[in-house]
Amino acid sequence: MDSRRDSEALLQRARRVALLVSDVDGVLTDGRLYLGAQGELMKAFDVRDGHGIKLLREAGIEVALLTARRSEIVDARARELGLARVLQGQSDKRAGFAQLLADTGVAAEHCAYIGDDWPDLPCLRAAGLAATVADACAEAKAAAHWIALAPGGRGAVRELAEFILRAQGRFDELLRRHTEGVLHA
Amino acid sequence: MDSRRDSEALLQRARRVALLVSDVDGVLTDGRLYLGAQGELMKAFDVRDGHGIKLLREAGIEVALLTARRSEIVDARARELGLARVLQGQSDKRAGFAQLLADTGVAAEHCAYIGDDWPDLPCLRAAGLAATVADACAEAKAAAHWIALAPGGRGAVRELAEFILRAQGRFDELLRRHTEGVLHA
Amino acid sequence: MDSRRDSEALLQRARRVALLVSDVDGVLTDGRLYLGAQGELMKAFDVRDGHGIKLLREAGIEVALLTARRSEIVDARARELGLARVLQGQSDKRAGFAQLLADTGVAAEHCAYIGDDWPDLPCLRAAGLAATVADACAEAKAAAHWIALAPGGRGAVRELAEFILRAQGRFDELLRRHTEGVLHA
Amino acid sequence: MDSRRDSEALLQRARRVALLVSDVDGVLTDGRLYLGAQGELMKAFDVRDGHGIKLLREAGIEVALLTARRSEIVDARARELGLARVLQGQSDKRAGFAQLLADTGVAAEHCAYIGDDWPDLPCLRAAGLAATVADACAEAKAAAHWIALAPGGRGAVRELAEFILRAQGRFDELLRRHTEGVLHA
Repeated sequence: MDSRRDSEALLQRARRVALLVSDVDGVLTDGRLYLGAQGELMKAFDVRDGHGIKLLREAGIEVALLTARRSEIVDARARELGLARVLQGQSDKRAGFAQLLADTGVAAEHCAYIGDDWPDLPCLRAAGLAATVADACAEAKAAAHWIALAPGGRGAVRELAEFILRAQGRFDELLRRHTEGVLHA
Repeated sequence: MDSRRDSEALLQRARRVALLVSDVDGVLTDGRLYLGAQGELMKAFDVRDGHGIKLLREAGIEVALLTARRSEIVDARARELGLARVLQGQSDKRAGFAQLLADTGVAAEHCAYIGDDWPDLPCLRAAGLAATVADACAEAKAAAHWIALAPGGRGAVRELAEFILRAQGRFDELLRRHTEGVLHA
Repeated sequence: MDSRRDSEALLQRARRVALLVSDVDGVLTDGRLYLGAQGELMKAFDVRDGHGIKLLREAGIEVALLTARRSEIVDARARELGLARVLQGQSDKRAGFAQLLADTGVAAEHCAYIGDDWPDLPCLRAAGLAATVADACAEAKAAAHWIALAPGGRGAVRELAEFILRAQGRFDELLRRHTEGVLHA
Repeated sequence: MDSRRDSEALLQRARRVALLVSDVDGVLTDGRLYLGAQGELMKAFDVRDGHGIKLLREAGIEVALLTARRSEIVDARARELGLARVLQGQSDKRAGFAQLLADTGVAAEHCAYIGDDWPDLPCLRAAGLAATVADACAEAKAAAHWIALAPGGRGAVRELAEFILRAQGRFDELLRRHTEGVLHA
């Protein structure tokens, strides 16, 4: 990681981001798998992360989900957030990551990736902006350019969204639009 | 925010409160959205917040809920608490807030509002007493007159209820009624 | 509260305990109410509290539940723990507490009560040993002889069980029985 | 516990491990029992623990579950992780532990056991490597050779898996295989 969260090199990485690819368990959730007798019952997402994802999309940054597990719950969350690109069951996330880049036509250099564990390491190493959560494994932290102050499922993705939007100079404008009535006039 | 939680100006705001309008996710819950394959399964409310809302209503202060999302779960919680005024699906909370003021005939100056994120900012700016939770976004904290020590879903609304009731000189009387048998004699 | 958790006066109170009456929400749970569209879906109990309750019963101390809310979930937990005495829907806990004392023939002086909020205050004031959780309201803490280091739903009742069993000189014997094979020989 | 987590005696214990037997509630979960009206609805497992268990199995170390409670939820988690050996309803864990050793042909000296409460004490005392979680009861901590920094259900088993794999000199190779494409080439 860059030694400062606001170093010029790090800001430069954030300025280039046109696509954010996010892992699900441990990033958009706190890593808890709620299992019933028939398998996974639910996941706990964070309302603040959802708001951050909406802001990114309003700023023209695409957001995609990439996960090794497979669950209709992820589809339900993606529908809520209006995310069309969701790749599940990707035990090799490298292949899924490459596919998302090909599908969107975004170069890896313009892609931010956030993940928290070993399966995310290849994506973290390939992404223009590699991000992780406060409670990630040591290897993910070592591979990340940026580490959230918040743990997974508790605002880490919101924090990353705000970091990118500030770097791109879009934060203040979005805040004004959301609170001065332009959007809902 | 006033620099002290017990400044005279802040107490004056609390003394005028006749209506409390509360956001739901992140305020009455900790912001976790529990999703199953078919959408939202449940929300986790706090039993202590419920007690605070009951105390406000016993003191003649009305309580209403205002949320951008839409869920039957919120109706279920409102029924438990005997709250008749619940506005959901208000992507523009300003309009919902104005409607609640019109419906109740309470002036904004006599209304307390508690919210934690961007969509709440217009209401926070309009309310006579603007309150937020310990884990609110920075912009909500900047707009608030009063910030709970507790995070959302973990007693913040109870804390606000007690603050208002103390400011209005009703706290000790309610405590006596609840514990000396007048209510259930 | 006695100024020391091991004062002789406090130990004396614990030595007399023949019945423990416990509140449910906020004591055996962390106070979260998990609501779905049709009402309460579940409660989160703590496996360690369950073990503490079993130990009390092995030592001949009866355990009863007393709650203002009403839920089949509490019956389910009581069945798991083999608790026959469960009083729900007691908006006036004083009456329920008196009934439990009458039903068991235990004097208030020989009864421990653990609760965390205003409705529990009359019982706390009447019980021979008044106990509460680390995250109780201030009024419950002021009324308690003993305050757990753990918050509700995270081991507070286990802690109380061990405190009573140690005061009564039963702890070491129970530990031996459980770990040296007498019970399951 | 050995006074240092990396003492030679402790590493020697870890080097011998060919089988890990794990308790469920309080170890693979945080001890919360989510009960509905009909009994247990779900358990919350940790995605990071799951990854640790997979790594152990890739290194040829068998993993089995042993629990006093009985739930189809544990079977569901075992299926996800590909664990064939699951013993439930073992109110006397000693017997279950002995059976697992007999079934696998592994000597107690080559077995690691992780548990957090009284029922686990006989197994902890018998196992070659006795491990527990950060929030275990005092008696389990006293009986353990190794104590996780993480509490139950929040990565303690992952931490143990990494400790064993490092002691056996397998960690770096596994990390390389997972991140350099050998596995999914």
